[in-house]
Amino acid sequence: MCELLGMSANTPTDLCFSFTGLTRRGGETGPHKDGWGVAFYEGKGVRMFHDPEPCATSPIADFVSKLPIKSKNAICHIRQANVGNINLANTHPFTRELWGRYWVFAHNGQLPNFSRRTGVYEAVGDTDSEELFCDIMNNVRQNLPRDAMPEQLAEKLVSLAKEYAQQGVFNCLLSNGDWLFTFCSTKLASITRRAPFGPACLSDVEVEIDFAAETTPKDVVSIIATEPLTNDEQWDIYERGEWKLWQEGEVIASGKVDVPEHKKEAEMVAPDPSLHD
Amino acid sequence: MCELLGMSANTPTDLCFSFTGLTRRGGETGPHKDGWGVAFYEGKGVRMFHDPEPCATSPIADFVSKLPIKSKNAICHIRQANVGNINLANTHPFTRELWGRYWVFAHNGQLPNFSRRTGVYEAVGDTDSEELFCDIMNNVRQNLPRDAMPEQLAEKLVSLAKEYAQQGVFNCLLSNGDWLFTFCSTKLASITRRAPFGPACLSDVEVEIDFAAETTPKDVVSIIATEPLTNDEQWDIYERGEWKLWQEGEVIASGKVDVPEHKKEAEMVAPDPSLHD
Repeated sequence: MCELLGMSANTPTDLCFSFTGLTRRGGETGPHKDGWGVAFYEGKGVRMFHDPEPCATSPIADFVSKLPIKSKNAICHIRQANVGNINLANTHPFTRELWGRYWVFAHNGQLPNFSRRTGVYEAVGDTDSEELFCDIMNNVRQNLPRDAMPEQLAEKLVSLAKEYAQQGVFNCLLSNGDWLFTFCSTKLASITRRAPFGPACLSDVEVEIDFAAETTPKDVVSIIATEPLTNDEQWDIYERGEWKLWQEGEVIASGKVDVPEHKKEAEMVAPDPSLHD
Repeated sequence: MCELLGMSANTPTDLCFSFTGLTRRGGETGPHKDGWGVAFYEGKGVRMFHDPEPCATSPIADFVSKLPIKSKNAICHIRQANVGNINLANTHPFTRELWGRYWVFAHNGQLPNFSRRTGVYEAVGDTDSEELFCDIMNNVRQNLPRDAMPEQLAEKLVSLAKEYAQQGVFNCLLSNGDWLFTFCSTKLASITRRAPFGPACLSDVEVEIDFAAETTPKDVVSIIATEPLTNDEQWDIYERGEWKLWQEGEVIASGKVDVPEHKKEAEMVAPDPSLHD
């Protein structure tokens, strides 16, 4: 399994604090040592950093964690490989261009044997995650008009996510730089920070921040992550099958669909004691 | 105008030396201060760094110039904007996926008013260069089989390059990670380094390297750049209309097509003294 981190904000904001917490899980406080990547939107452009090295010890991750890149939408992923080798082509997030925008995707979960339907987008690496991304992109291109509203897109994305989540574990972050779509099949949490801002402490490393010193009263910044990154704030935990569409730091649409619990996942999350006694 | 830098090698090689020379031209020894970008292939994956800041003073460029990323194919670009604003979306090199590979493109020149023909690939930013790239990608996708050999691809690329060079200045580098296609409409130079390796000095900054200490006798590394980057080696200067297809550090196909000299370009390169007296 992997860890996801997304940001949606109404003003360009750096991700240094959350990124610092997450990267500790990449081989230090967590087992996600098989590479990492991050995408920062700046306008319609996107700045990507990818590295197949463990992010807890990657010089590039260390450099990026100190780089105050300001973004309204960002997606980050640290990987614990299960499908596909550890190499650059298999390192999330993945990007494709559609309708003159870059779409960025990261996935946490596993859909063994998934293969995408026909379409113009093809995977470069050999992960199930990239196949899923290409399947989404082909479906969106084939079935929606290019001027589709975010809510119309969300409806399509939810129906695809539901289909995937019936075949395996599918937590995802997807953005085109304008909005951020999030879907929880097993694990996802979010927090929205707005005035009055206060301090916060990371769970994975001794770092504290005072958001009041770094923000203006109008700022709204939401962070979405596999698990809460701070230990002194109240995070919202997504329910199974819950999805939220974020824009400018706010939820603009949300809902919940039925998603089955998979046998394998159930074993992993809450093992049957009889098997282990 | 901009500056291009490409590398084709038969063994993963770092670009630190040439990149250090080129980046001096990004606002220090040259006027190309409107952003820079570089793409390094690692297998089928590609690692990209983009920055709309002048590369001579960019912390990311400084970091990348010391990062020994090993690649067999790399493309770098520093920009002096003429078409399109200075922003991330307009920063070369550009990438699209085709047939399960990432294709990367950088352009030096100007084709005012160029607009691509219809196809699945669309520009995200508003440069003529990205429109040209999308036109190439649409043409290749529509007119060639997915198992086309590099030589067959080159034939198509040359005919497109010739067409573009008739409308304006079109020097380019294009790669899919397997080969590197280069076309010269006005300015391009190359050098192939192989055993016995010797020392070399950069033209733009006082840096010397002894390649013999960093290579094995089997290594073949070719560098392609707008202008020679060293002052003590013999570079091959491309002629107008000349193209070369590189693979594993060697030229595997080459040729020359007729390309007209443009009035504007002639004025820029060799101004009529009567106009300036």
